[in-house]
Amino acid sequence: MLTIGVDIGGTKVAAGVVDHDGQILDKVKYPTPSHDPDGLAEVVGRAVRELRERRPEREVGAVGVGVAGFVDEDRATVQVAVNLGLLDEPLKERVRRHVDLPVVVENDANAAAWAEARFGAGRGSDHIVCVTLGTGIGGGLVLGGALHRGRHGVAAEVGHYRMVPHGRRCACGNHGCWEQYASGRALVAEGQDLARTDPERGERMLKLADGLVERIEGEVITRAAMEGDPAALECFRIVGDWAGLGLADLAAILDPECFVLGGGVSDAGDILLDPVRASFARHVSGRPGRRLAEVRVAELGGEAGIVGAGDLARH
Amino acid sequence: MLTIGVDIGGTKVAAGVVDHDGQILDKVKYPTPSHDPDGLAEVVGRAVRELRERRPEREVGAVGVGVAGFVDEDRATVQVAVNLGLLDEPLKERVRRHVDLPVVVENDANAAAWAEARFGAGRGSDHIVCVTLGTGIGGGLVLGGALHRGRHGVAAEVGHYRMVPHGRRCACGNHGCWEQYASGRALVAEGQDLARTDPERGERMLKLADGLVERIEGEVITRAAMEGDPAALECFRIVGDWAGLGLADLAAILDPECFVLGGGVSDAGDILLDPVRASFARHVSGRPGRRLAEVRVAELGGEAGIVGAGDLARH
Amino acid sequence: MLTIGVDIGGTKVAAGVVDHDGQILDKVKYPTPSHDPDGLAEVVGRAVRELRERRPEREVGAVGVGVAGFVDEDRATVQVAVNLGLLDEPLKERVRRHVDLPVVVENDANAAAWAEARFGAGRGSDHIVCVTLGTGIGGGLVLGGALHRGRHGVAAEVGHYRMVPHGRRCACGNHGCWEQYASGRALVAEGQDLARTDPERGERMLKLADGLVERIEGEVITRAAMEGDPAALECFRIVGDWAGLGLADLAAILDPECFVLGGGVSDAGDILLDPVRASFARHVSGRPGRRLAEVRVAELGGEAGIVGAGDLARH
Amino acid sequence: MLTIGVDIGGTKVAAGVVDHDGQILDKVKYPTPSHDPDGLAEVVGRAVRELRERRPEREVGAVGVGVAGFVDEDRATVQVAVNLGLLDEPLKERVRRHVDLPVVVENDANAAAWAEARFGAGRGSDHIVCVTLGTGIGGGLVLGGALHRGRHGVAAEVGHYRMVPHGRRCACGNHGCWEQYASGRALVAEGQDLARTDPERGERMLKLADGLVERIEGEVITRAAMEGDPAALECFRIVGDWAGLGLADLAAILDPECFVLGGGVSDAGDILLDPVRASFARHVSGRPGRRLAEVRVAELGGEAGIVGAGDLARH
Repeated sequence: MLTIGVDIGGTKVAAGVVDHDGQILDKVKYPTPSHDPDGLAEVVGRAVRELRERRPEREVGAVGVGVAGFVDEDRATVQVAVNLGLLDEPLKERVRRHVDLPVVVENDANAAAWAEARFGAGRGSDHIVCVTLGTGIGGGLVLGGALHRGRHGVAAEVGHYRMVPHGRRCACGNHGCWEQYASGRALVAEGQDLARTDPERGERMLKLADGLVERIEGEVITRAAMEGDPAALECFRIVGDWAGLGLADLAAILDPECFVLGGGVSDAGDILLDPVRASFARHVSGRPGRRLAEVRVAELGGEAGIVGAGDLARH
Repeated sequence: MLTIGVDIGGTKVAAGVVDHDGQILDKVKYPTPSHDPDGLAEVVGRAVRELRERRPEREVGAVGVGVAGFVDEDRATVQVAVNLGLLDEPLKERVRRHVDLPVVVENDANAAAWAEARFGAGRGSDHIVCVTLGTGIGGGLVLGGALHRGRHGVAAEVGHYRMVPHGRRCACGNHGCWEQYASGRALVAEGQDLARTDPERGERMLKLADGLVERIEGEVITRAAMEGDPAALECFRIVGDWAGLGLADLAAILDPECFVLGGGVSDAGDILLDPVRASFARHVSGRPGRRLAEVRVAELGGEAGIVGAGDLARH
Repeated sequence: MLTIGVDIGGTKVAAGVVDHDGQILDKVKYPTPSHDPDGLAEVVGRAVRELRERRPEREVGAVGVGVAGFVDEDRATVQVAVNLGLLDEPLKERVRRHVDLPVVVENDANAAAWAEARFGAGRGSDHIVCVTLGTGIGGGLVLGGALHRGRHGVAAEVGHYRMVPHGRRCACGNHGCWEQYASGRALVAEGQDLARTDPERGERMLKLADGLVERIEGEVITRAAMEGDPAALECFRIVGDWAGLGLADLAAILDPECFVLGGGVSDAGDILLDPVRASFARHVSGRPGRRLAEVRVAELGGEAGIVGAGDLARH
Repeated sequence: MLTIGVDIGGTKVAAGVVDHDGQILDKVKYPTPSHDPDGLAEVVGRAVRELRERRPEREVGAVGVGVAGFVDEDRATVQVAVNLGLLDEPLKERVRRHVDLPVVVENDANAAAWAEARFGAGRGSDHIVCVTLGTGIGGGLVLGGALHRGRHGVAAEVGHYRMVPHGRRCACGNHGCWEQYASGRALVAEGQDLARTDPERGERMLKLADGLVERIEGEVITRAAMEGDPAALECFRIVGDWAGLGLADLAAILDPECFVLGGGVSDAGDILLDPVRASFARHVSGRPGRRLAEVRVAELGGEAGIVGAGDLARH
């Protein structure tokens, strides 16, 4: 049996036919209708139909839909998906009107984590913590070989565990959330702060940003760091320190076999990983003697959402 | 089938016959031989033999041994148990020389958490986080209805996730561990600090401690708090605030259905629970709208270790 | 001899004739010309002329100008005054073109502190720390009976000493500055956060703000607190705690005889002072035994700037 | 006129004849009588007598006594000197029984700061902050050319301003005091923690300490750092970071012209100063544009106490 995985993002709906080995056999893409649940379900239906028409009958047996939002533990309802404008949305039911196959709805980070655990950087391990260092920080937990969704479907919101009491304000209403220290946004804040308060040291980043502090984005810092610019490398070191500190906390709580880091910040590879691993090793409890979890970079990139949603529909 | 649960503590080895409902049908106790693995295994063997002799043949089918230390994921070897003087100790094998039944070895906090999840304050829930506020902080995770031991058997060391960067020094070698803020030791530190720097406000606690700051122990603070002493209540409020902050972090990561608080500090009941719940509600991410996990007090007390070890031997 | 004190604020230039006892005998006001140093000097000149014309000749002997910005140690040049659009501005020289009297330029917070020290809440003391809890936090130090300006005229920037490492981002480019925790802005942030994450508890504040979180301003919180609203009182308690913590640090460094709190937040009187004093007493080092500095509210209100600038011109 | 400066330390009483240029012309030393105020005054008297006998009559005009303790603002009474066992001790009066010259009593750190300001690393500056990085952190403030003692004689206790809320416990009863992060004791804690949790990286320090973690003292870390050992250098970097952070806070409050660092930790010279200066520059508010205070090492070493006490007796 094949399945179809659908990844509903803020700008596009990507769907693919996924086989037992996590391979995507065929793929389609549509723009995401915003704030329009009916339109959204229709687009999902169209994508599924299109993909099925190109394959032998009955080959596709189920549909998994990954969505950037809180999904209830029944894998049917989207509690809230801010970017898509969904609130208490019975997405499964609505999609079922357009698709006569079993449908499950999943949180997109969970879907991606599942894909990495089964077919990507985490394959072979039963206990995996995926951490997505994007604009914010997302996460997914595969524990004992199963996806851990939590009681209400909102587990693995690792970006919002508190790193610093009374720390930086977070959009979630709390202060000191991890994502204020170790995300792409945090990297950019470090780069811009450095350039603003010490333009001399920030010269290379400023130059790559046309001289404008506010144009120092993640790509600029990554590029400067790859050229060896000490200021940009320091930004990665600071963010990597915080990231490693967070992994140490997660290791104390979950004792995983490996961490899989994804998201845009992880594109910097060892420039990020080196400080992350050093910080993790220095801060994890039980040293010396503790067997350290490995820290790896995600392998499936942007397709992890499709693969994971498809594979979860199979189980 | 019945099982025998053994709880190896620092001073005594307690063993009991446990039935399907988590009831202890019979019980024996021996002093713990310290730094003597052979003697320890012998005592466990004697306790098991004694309990079996009093029951019909073949009624007891397995033995579970809970021990205060890191236990390997194979449930056989104790990596380290500081208080018992064990290091890389093949405890299962050694016990098997005295007991001709299947034996499993478990971490004692895991065993107790399992008991609370199955038969105590957490029964009926699949996702439970147990937090033991004793001298330090221990923990146990029941996720998806199963005990989560982690890859190397050392999961749920929640007392050593970092609460405060650059915070109070911990015996584990790190700084700012949760147990430096929300454990019994933390409560005592608050009480003693208060009495030392403000003897007037700490008068009641001091009186109960024969006027000596260093005799302000947990019992003294609890008793003063129960009498309504504002200073003692403030100590609980501070410790409860930190405890609730930690639960908020664990909720962000694990999304449990309920938290079960055990250990000596929880003997204070609502005096502790009120500030814990208030702090948890104020700090958990996703407010408003989030369905809050319940915070309960453990029900099985000191017998949880026997019950859990026995029940885990059954599975 | 009388002097004239001029207080250049963001919206108005207020000037007054000040006598030996810090009394204002006459007063005028003009709108502040923005980003126009020439115009500004002219307005100052006009105000001085007007006030002098109404008095006997030669009665006024000097002019002191207080300005919201960094003033060089020569009391002549404004290094930077963001709100007025001044940068490396030779303000004394420019004013002298319009005024044939000795002129000194002072930082406005220093001028106000001097006034409080000489004629207000701090009179009689030689060692006074003034802390202005306005939108941000400003300060002024009177040490050994003299205004302490520092080597470069920028002492007493107490709002920008670091309260929390890795704390809340500050407009100054640093993180964790005191003014992010204990200013009017901090009070508003507490009130809005509370109302957003717990609308039920924040009900009274919300009602006073027409139901809109973003309209919960300082006045709203103060009014609700004065009515006894527990949520508003908690906001003051949190901000007061941080304020007291800062005073404890300043006491460790400076050992003043008293603190004088001014600015809009101090309008709440004891609602603010009670938690400030409690926090200060709890956190100051050297307890028990230390003689505690007093914490008082400023007495001269908005006129402190004129009085202080005038009096400083005399010395 | 010459004066005599006396430096009462925990183990020895050192006294010297001091001239107008801060030169010590003659010197004597005695063991310190412990917990014996009468004996202590007698020893001071003997030292003064001995030094005077070797000089022409009437050449010596006053005596300054520096003592490691809190000294009242009247420069006569020692409030508390823990190591000497003094409490509310009228030291001036008692010394006067043995010495028929004017006597002033000063805090020893204040005396040393005064010496550095007048004749040492701070000469030529009117605004100096001296920070002694010894076992703990002491300090002295010279502001506007005068020693700032504070209202009760206990100013400049900079080691006990709070660096980290809820941070490391301090002997003073508070948490997070600066001296828990940037003192000699903090350096040793870093070295020992590193060697304990990562013996491989700590190898060099361990070797210099005969393989025993608890023998890793300041000298060991300094020696290893001077050899270029990366682990020891990291210890200095961490402590230097915190030291620089503290200087940034002191600069925000006091705006000094220079900082003078003394105490055992400063013996490491640039190994300490480089990270201190970098951290100070990165964290001070008002960057870019702010004129940075210089950070210098003390020049007078152990004799600063005698010189300062002597010179303060002159004024």
